[in-house]
Amino acid sequence: MTAREAPSRILIAVGGNAIHPGDIRGTPEEQVELAARTGESLLPILMRERNQIVITHGNGPVVGKILMRQTLARDRVAPMSLDICVAHSQGGIAYLLMQALENALRKAGSPRHVVCLLTQVEVDPDDPAFVSPSKPIGYFYDENDALEVQATLGWTMREDAGRGWRLVVPSPEPRHIADISLVQAVLESGAVAIAGGGGGIPVVRAPDGTRRGLAAVIDKDLSSALMAKVLGLDALFILTAVPRVSIHFGTAREKPLAKVTVDDLRAYQREGHFAAGSMGPKVEAAARFVEETGKLAVIAHLDEAQAAVCGDAGTRVYPAPA
Amino acid sequence: MTAREAPSRILIAVGGNAIHPGDIRGTPEEQVELAARTGESLLPILMRERNQIVITHGNGPVVGKILMRQTLARDRVAPMSLDICVAHSQGGIAYLLMQALENALRKAGSPRHVVCLLTQVEVDPDDPAFVSPSKPIGYFYDENDALEVQATLGWTMREDAGRGWRLVVPSPEPRHIADISLVQAVLESGAVAIAGGGGGIPVVRAPDGTRRGLAAVIDKDLSSALMAKVLGLDALFILTAVPRVSIHFGTAREKPLAKVTVDDLRAYQREGHFAAGSMGPKVEAAARFVEETGKLAVIAHLDEAQAAVCGDAGTRVYPAPA
Repeated sequence: MTAREAPSRILIAVGGNAIHPGDIRGTPEEQVELAARTGESLLPILMRERNQIVITHGNGPVVGKILMRQTLARDRVAPMSLDICVAHSQGGIAYLLMQALENALRKAGSPRHVVCLLTQVEVDPDDPAFVSPSKPIGYFYDENDALEVQATLGWTMREDAGRGWRLVVPSPEPRHIADISLVQAVLESGAVAIAGGGGGIPVVRAPDGTRRGLAAVIDKDLSSALMAKVLGLDALFILTAVPRVSIHFGTAREKPLAKVTVDDLRAYQREGHFAAGSMGPKVEAAARFVEETGKLAVIAHLDEAQAAVCGDAGTRVYPAPA
Repeated sequence: MTAREAPSRILIAVGGNAIHPGDIRGTPEEQVELAARTGESLLPILMRERNQIVITHGNGPVVGKILMRQTLARDRVAPMSLDICVAHSQGGIAYLLMQALENALRKAGSPRHVVCLLTQVEVDPDDPAFVSPSKPIGYFYDENDALEVQATLGWTMREDAGRGWRLVVPSPEPRHIADISLVQAVLESGAVAIAGGGGGIPVVRAPDGTRRGLAAVIDKDLSSALMAKVLGLDALFILTAVPRVSIHFGTAREKPLAKVTVDDLRAYQREGHFAAGSMGPKVEAAARFVEETGKLAVIAHLDEAQAAVCGDAGTRVYPAPA
């Protein structure tokens, strides 16, 4: 494939901020406006009717609000388990995203459908992440609140670099995307599929095939890479708030990468160029997808989605020197 | 069709209590247990592989908790609009229902998939319901809280027969199920479709085809009847907590109906036999479906789902004397 020949079966991962401001006071009106902007940004991609497109999304601010609301209401209303919180966030975010993408399509005269599938993602109950929860999620709590929810809700709270206390949860590896054949069926119907929101609802599967949810959050970029791989897609696009992946980030020697082989990217990763919790998981997801499929992964700014798909923006991760 | 020849393309509407106890302290463990019981009850129907099955569900207790949590947290966390609350409830309820139904299938050795589609339902912005909100939703508030949320959140609160104050919202007529072709595609794939939860996310469609959400709750039985009709299904099953519809309910003359023509049902309805907010909407939904399609509607107990489908339980509403 040349850089100019846009891939036609793709997965686009957008951040939780594509649909919600970071602020805990973010209103529904702001959410609708952000979703509309995301719709406009993705529109040229959605308009190519022969494309098969899966869209995944993060859920950071929304699940943070769900957790904070249930903390504040805990004396009156029974709290939900974390798998159910993720399911709620999939519903709320995918609704706004589905509506915004369809609205952008309608304004452009396209009748294309966008459909949202709730998605469970299986993890290994023996994943080491369960022994040492390490992923901070949600908003910051002051120390008193933090210690009280730790005592009453059984949450693991950790002080975060002087900024306050946050819930810390296991972030196990995604092992299997449940019911992926339905995502495939949606793609074949010509509709755009929204799936795997917030990394997927974390579940374990017993030997008899039954599933149950557990208290974890799966990294949405790693789930996206797995989903793109099992669907046999041509390319993985991880859209975020910076135009390119940089080495020496935040220093005078900062250098954005336009094209990079996966071997070079892994070397930079080993050298510690990519921060855990921000660019780290995106780089890891891109590298895995390219290594395991020999295909293309791109990390780019959400506003440059179309250019990224056409080869003119973002950091392109290749299996071999291009 | 004889009573013994079970219809093969059906919609099953379950109440919000099929997945959640009424109590605001209902825990995730209780929800999982109730969902499992619902799965066991529906299993014989799900096991008939040639059946095309759509499942809709109510959301009463769950959306009540969402509203109560955001009320109690309103000083810290921006409240969601009601359409987003319904979307959250679709996510949370359909996740547990999907998992429970698949678990029941797996234990019985079936690999059949269950898939959940988020569903928007269009209403008429000029629906008279918007002029006079009348549907009480959520849990009860004491007077002080009620007046304060009325002032700060702009909710319409109403005192309810000495039991406390409740949010009252418009309940407009469902006019169009958005993206119904995707539900059809899921059915044709052989999977069971969960859709239209909580009556659907209420939206209006502008002349250019774009949609936006609004503050309303659509009756889930009326949405279910519309969905069954537009999908051209053979029968509508409304499963609830009583075995049959009764006339003279709660009196010495109470008489459960086993079979009834839609004309007779309408006559009983005009005579005031069915309470608004409980059996009223179920009877209305069943009558509409039978009148508009000439097919069969059944109102039955959730625990008798299989018998209801086979013709041995519930109140069967026919287009003509059987």
